[in-house]
Amino acid sequence: MKILVANLGSTSFKYRLFDLGDPAEPVLARGAIERIGAPSAKIVIKSIKGEREMDRPIADHGDAVQLCLDQLTDPEIGVLDDASDVSAIGFKAVHARNLTGVHLVDEPVLEAMEAFADVCPAHNPPYTKAMRMLRERFPNLPLVAAYETGFHRTIPEAAQRYAIPDDWSTRLGVRRWGFHGASHRYISWRMPELLGRKDIKVISCHLGGSSSLTAIRNGESVACSLGMSPQSGLPHNNRVGDFDVFALPVLLRETGKSLEEILDILANQSGLEGISGHRDLRDIEAAAAAGEARSKLAIDLFVASIRHYLGAYLLELGGADAIVFTGGIGENSQWIRSETCRELEWFGITLDPERNAKGPAERRVSADGSRVEVWTVPTNEELVVARQSEALLKSGARSSA
Amino acid sequence: MKILVANLGSTSFKYRLFDLGDPAEPVLARGAIERIGAPSAKIVIKSIKGEREMDRPIADHGDAVQLCLDQLTDPEIGVLDDASDVSAIGFKAVHARNLTGVHLVDEPVLEAMEAFADVCPAHNPPYTKAMRMLRERFPNLPLVAAYETGFHRTIPEAAQRYAIPDDWSTRLGVRRWGFHGASHRYISWRMPELLGRKDIKVISCHLGGSSSLTAIRNGESVACSLGMSPQSGLPHNNRVGDFDVFALPVLLRETGKSLEEILDILANQSGLEGISGHRDLRDIEAAAAAGEARSKLAIDLFVASIRHYLGAYLLELGGADAIVFTGGIGENSQWIRSETCRELEWFGITLDPERNAKGPAERRVSADGSRVEVWTVPTNEELVVARQSEALLKSGARSSA
Repeated sequence: MKILVANLGSTSFKYRLFDLGDPAEPVLARGAIERIGAPSAKIVIKSIKGEREMDRPIADHGDAVQLCLDQLTDPEIGVLDDASDVSAIGFKAVHARNLTGVHLVDEPVLEAMEAFADVCPAHNPPYTKAMRMLRERFPNLPLVAAYETGFHRTIPEAAQRYAIPDDWSTRLGVRRWGFHGASHRYISWRMPELLGRKDIKVISCHLGGSSSLTAIRNGESVACSLGMSPQSGLPHNNRVGDFDVFALPVLLRETGKSLEEILDILANQSGLEGISGHRDLRDIEAAAAAGEARSKLAIDLFVASIRHYLGAYLLELGGADAIVFTGGIGENSQWIRSETCRELEWFGITLDPERNAKGPAERRVSADGSRVEVWTVPTNEELVVARQSEALLKSGARSSA
Repeated sequence: MKILVANLGSTSFKYRLFDLGDPAEPVLARGAIERIGAPSAKIVIKSIKGEREMDRPIADHGDAVQLCLDQLTDPEIGVLDDASDVSAIGFKAVHARNLTGVHLVDEPVLEAMEAFADVCPAHNPPYTKAMRMLRERFPNLPLVAAYETGFHRTIPEAAQRYAIPDDWSTRLGVRRWGFHGASHRYISWRMPELLGRKDIKVISCHLGGSSSLTAIRNGESVACSLGMSPQSGLPHNNRVGDFDVFALPVLLRETGKSLEEILDILANQSGLEGISGHRDLRDIEAAAAAGEARSKLAIDLFVASIRHYLGAYLLELGGADAIVFTGGIGENSQWIRSETCRELEWFGITLDPERNAKGPAERRVSADGSRVEVWTVPTNEELVVARQSEALLKSGARSSA
């Protein structure tokens, strides 16, 4: 079965086409279309047959998918005989009211995502807008939403709860949902292969534009740093991370802003950018190295927050077999990895500086004899979504856990 | 110097009179007046000369202090020649805008506390009301406010910050202040005496009606689970603990309540009571033991939250010399202690079940050979406030760190 996995931004469309019928599960083609809606979009397409770069106007996400299907059947670099060979488009969807797991996208699913637009202001609006357009434009192409919250439903009830009235947790769904499920699930699949056994305890550190830690025992999530919303937990590039709701009266009073405006700032102008003035960690690292105090503070805060959850999960698991760094920052920043793992001799955890200094790749970066192995593992969220989409289609059901 | 330390509730006044001129720092007298403002208040007074119990109407906190001073100079059970022998009343004050440390209570101090009435809705209003009354009634008796946030000002800046715009942290004071400073400071004084050396790393677990963990290195706080407000961190008896601010849009929309009403529920009808229906941990433990699912859930959530911060601070400190349980629950609940310390063999931490089962007292409850000593230590917040008050008066300054 061939599954197209889509990654949507408000003005971008990235995709990978997986051939899951082949045991190697190869990516037949991948592409990125950026600046959708602008006078000229930037288009990059790579398939197993060739590459192409273009600049041309792309009006909306419907046109983007049409271009993608055209290229997939292109006589020169195409990999499909017919666009109908694509069995489904799978989406790494974030959050919806009262929904988790994997769902065929229909009107109730779209409404459930729209109901949580203010819980996930950066994610849900572009997804529901694009999904509605694609449903109209490609009515015979199944769309599958694989929710980021699905992997975390094995977290014990007590760790999913906030200490709020029971009705708010059970009826209104105010609980620690956890996110980044596709990435952490991939790590939960990959680490048993790398360590050669299944009964392992892993702390997965997904660090990137948004970041989270997840504690995994025997392949199942037992804790995640993200809570009710994707703005919680670790600080993100421009989203706040953990915050105290009782700071709101002060912010409302002192700034004169509305609650909606304050939440917008917490979701869009906070995080590492709110402190440092830079959004990309590479820029923050460079500025900190050049002596900029606010950038140094942002890195210190980020590392303190990673270490906070790392310690919490090390204790929750009663020790660990592996700590895994993944995501754009986790795979690439040796600084963040070495700061996170500093002074852990008491726990018997030590990095190997030479291994840690190498570029991104799947490898062990801990020293020989470290009591917990430390790894960098490139994540593969798209493969997870592709497999989940295929499983749903094969089941014949409209949804699955 | 003789210092009266007051503990105020909205309808209660408890006190201890310390004689700090005596090297043993004895408590000369202590008392509790409950149901202030009701037709009849319940009064219990104990001094080194005798005890007395009474029921009589006490109109307000001014009358309560007057009764206290009368009893302290009573011919039979009194311990002072004259009420003017009391050098000051010291208060374990919670939080004030732009103030921390120790302060003589004057109009600006009262206004700073009133400005944070909505950040500390359960604490600040009864304190400022009573302090205003006492200033009017006893103009020559110095009142000293020793803030619960003072001990935590040694926390590194990065760990005090939320990932919010810089101006909100620096100018508006939205930061992780930390609380329970008097209790954690007492533990920071006491543990070097018990372990026989000063360069120790201690995790202080103050568990009671409200709860927090603090990481202490060489006598200084380096992290506290309480943040901007006393409603954050661990779940408290009826206050929420950590929560996701982006749950608010859902709560506002689905309940039809105002932000003020939602915050009131989070501050007064949440926490362990919000989940279990019982406020006192002893009742929750009894209900859980009798099979009540919601009470079992409340205990599991409480323990998960304690373990979360315990792990975080164990890693932050790079290991610890001692874990200390204090406060009403910490000193008395062997269940909470054993659940908190379960399955920590990987860390070399083991309780001694027999020692843990004994009643409250200052003692080691870890097994011989445990890599980290675990203790129960009755806290003494009043002694801390008395010493801080004395130090301020002796300095001649109006405030100190």
